[in-house]
Amino acid sequence: MLTIRSYFHDYSLEEHLSLRKALESFAGNKGVVYLIDETVLRKHAKAFEGLVLEEWRIVIKASEEQKSFERLAPIFLELLARGFKRDGILVVIGGGVLQDIGCFIATVLFRGVRWELIPTTLLAQADSCIGSKSSINIGSYKNQIGTFYPPHRVLLVADVLKSLPWDEVRSGLGEVIKLQLIAGESGFDELMNDLEKVTPDGNEGVISKWVGRSMAVKKHYIEEDEYDRGIRNILNYGHTFGHAYESATKYAIPHGIAVLLGILTATYLSARLGLVAELHYQDLKRQITPWCHPYGNAVLTADREAIFKAIKQDKKNTGDAVNCILTRGVGRMEKMRVDFSRDLVPAVEEFINWELNNQNNQTNK
Amino acid sequence: MLTIRSYFHDYSLEEHLSLRKALESFAGNKGVVYLIDETVLRKHAKAFEGLVLEEWRIVIKASEEQKSFERLAPIFLELLARGFKRDGILVVIGGGVLQDIGCFIATVLFRGVRWELIPTTLLAQADSCIGSKSSINIGSYKNQIGTFYPPHRVLLVADVLKSLPWDEVRSGLGEVIKLQLIAGESGFDELMNDLEKVTPDGNEGVISKWVGRSMAVKKHYIEEDEYDRGIRNILNYGHTFGHAYESATKYAIPHGIAVLLGILTATYLSARLGLVAELHYQDLKRQITPWCHPYGNAVLTADREAIFKAIKQDKKNTGDAVNCILTRGVGRMEKMRVDFSRDLVPAVEEFINWELNNQNNQTNK
Repeated sequence: MLTIRSYFHDYSLEEHLSLRKALESFAGNKGVVYLIDETVLRKHAKAFEGLVLEEWRIVIKASEEQKSFERLAPIFLELLARGFKRDGILVVIGGGVLQDIGCFIATVLFRGVRWELIPTTLLAQADSCIGSKSSINIGSYKNQIGTFYPPHRVLLVADVLKSLPWDEVRSGLGEVIKLQLIAGESGFDELMNDLEKVTPDGNEGVISKWVGRSMAVKKHYIEEDEYDRGIRNILNYGHTFGHAYESATKYAIPHGIAVLLGILTATYLSARLGLVAELHYQDLKRQITPWCHPYGNAVLTADREAIFKAIKQDKKNTGDAVNCILTRGVGRMEKMRVDFSRDLVPAVEEFINWELNNQNNQTNK
Repeated sequence: MLTIRSYFHDYSLEEHLSLRKALESFAGNKGVVYLIDETVLRKHAKAFEGLVLEEWRIVIKASEEQKSFERLAPIFLELLARGFKRDGILVVIGGGVLQDIGCFIATVLFRGVRWELIPTTLLAQADSCIGSKSSINIGSYKNQIGTFYPPHRVLLVADVLKSLPWDEVRSGLGEVIKLQLIAGESGFDELMNDLEKVTPDGNEGVISKWVGRSMAVKKHYIEEDEYDRGIRNILNYGHTFGHAYESATKYAIPHGIAVLLGILTATYLSARLGLVAELHYQDLKRQITPWCHPYGNAVLTADREAIFKAIKQDKKNTGDAVNCILTRGVGRMEKMRVDFSRDLVPAVEEFINWELNNQNNQTNK
């Protein structure tokens, strides 16, 4: 068990062998309502049977469209109509979308209620489940609205990681790789070595190990800088470009894979600016590319203008230049302002035209 | 100048002689957008002239209906479309509704932006402007959604208190009276003495003095208990009943006047439960009634069932009994659980049928 310090309340990260065992830990609590991802409920119906009554369930179809005021309003009304009270517990079961919705609701309903989280994707378990953030969309603006408010307890469940689609595994591993790149050489090398054993047929043992290791890295940054004003920015490594690739391809690329492509872009730009040796970029490219294939193609064929527009609109930018996390090597990321037209655009153009094109000659993972 | 300590950021309460002077303090700041109550803009147009350009203004018609997700969405979109950035400043100018809207937006836009507040009603200046809370409605549920997030600066402007409608003055004084009742005998006696001089023709000097004194009382409670989990509850004195009277009369009673009627109810109930002498209730009734007249009639003729339903639905209630702030005398309020059917209902029935009926024989103020 890991404890995370927070401005709001410290919270624990507990490991459970199965979803059923995790759900059993709520038995006897009064006033619990469960916000459940429809797919998770279908896939793990047995775990809920006889334990979570129908009348305590609010079932959500997880999609980006759900993350809007229009779609949130009926959920608030449902909670109020069922008599949910300020001393109730909102249990959120699902991936990133459910977490965003659940966290936002828990922050603002009665100005804050207790909520507990059972993350069911690798991305959520290895990255987003700690750190307090929620993100909501409005109109065409993505993730511009949100709150900071951590769950009161996070229950990491091993059995939901079995039989995940391969792209979902790779997407989760994208953030795992990012966190170890930030942590330093030894962790990164050990990870890349272990990942040799992970295939579409599984290897949950390795994955569970790196969920724990990821949490340990992230814990440090979010405890130091919960409100994301300083060193926590480092966790955005790969995200400025990754988000732009996601948005320009209309979310055809799984998030963590877009982050890996973003990390390659940031490293390429860093090398071009003389911050890191060209060789470092080549090494990383060799190791990471198999985890991205064939999504580099989606970026290659995406509308360039849409990519650059998204980079400029990123909410991390406050002036004309663009804030990026660049690298001086493994474990040595830094936030820097990059001149948009002079430095960023030509480097990204080159990266996409040359480097992503070359990826097509590489092997799949 | 008063400084308020907060979990989020300390903030200052500054006094300015005029709205124009207050607005001048933003000159030279970049990225400022002003959220302005339409009525304030019309009434004080000159103060804005040449200082606050049209393109920086978002003008809002203040009404309870505005405090909903449906009506907030266009304001968020307007801010984003105008290129409002995370290092911008949102300046909110108006009364309680503008404060609720502005605070909510500032809390969740980019997960929190700087906002500054110019409260323009006596109620806002003497009570709500400090303490961090926002409240939003959903469906038929009032104020069940909200956030804690104080402004970064509050500018108290004297000239906007001139020529306020008399009911708005009395409504503001309702919370002023409540705060001094909580503070203790000497403050309360001095206040009631000073209020003899306040008439519909004015006396801003007296009012300004008690704005300051109110802030000093409230500061103590919100600094001790910003999240309203303990002693800050005391500030709800009169509110359980006041809110019910407001809701059952469809908001025909100004808020602070409803609070005064609620204070009388709570004191009557306290006397009936033997917590305080009957004589104390009679004293208070004599002093407070002139400030409520003729709104007691609105309660007298309101639907009783609607009143009791509202009391039970109050978000402060977490079980079958009802949490009320009761009194053992001036300066001696306590939060207690009151049995709803046995104790609360008959006392409130009696209060309305007998005490409010009698008020009709009393003088107006």
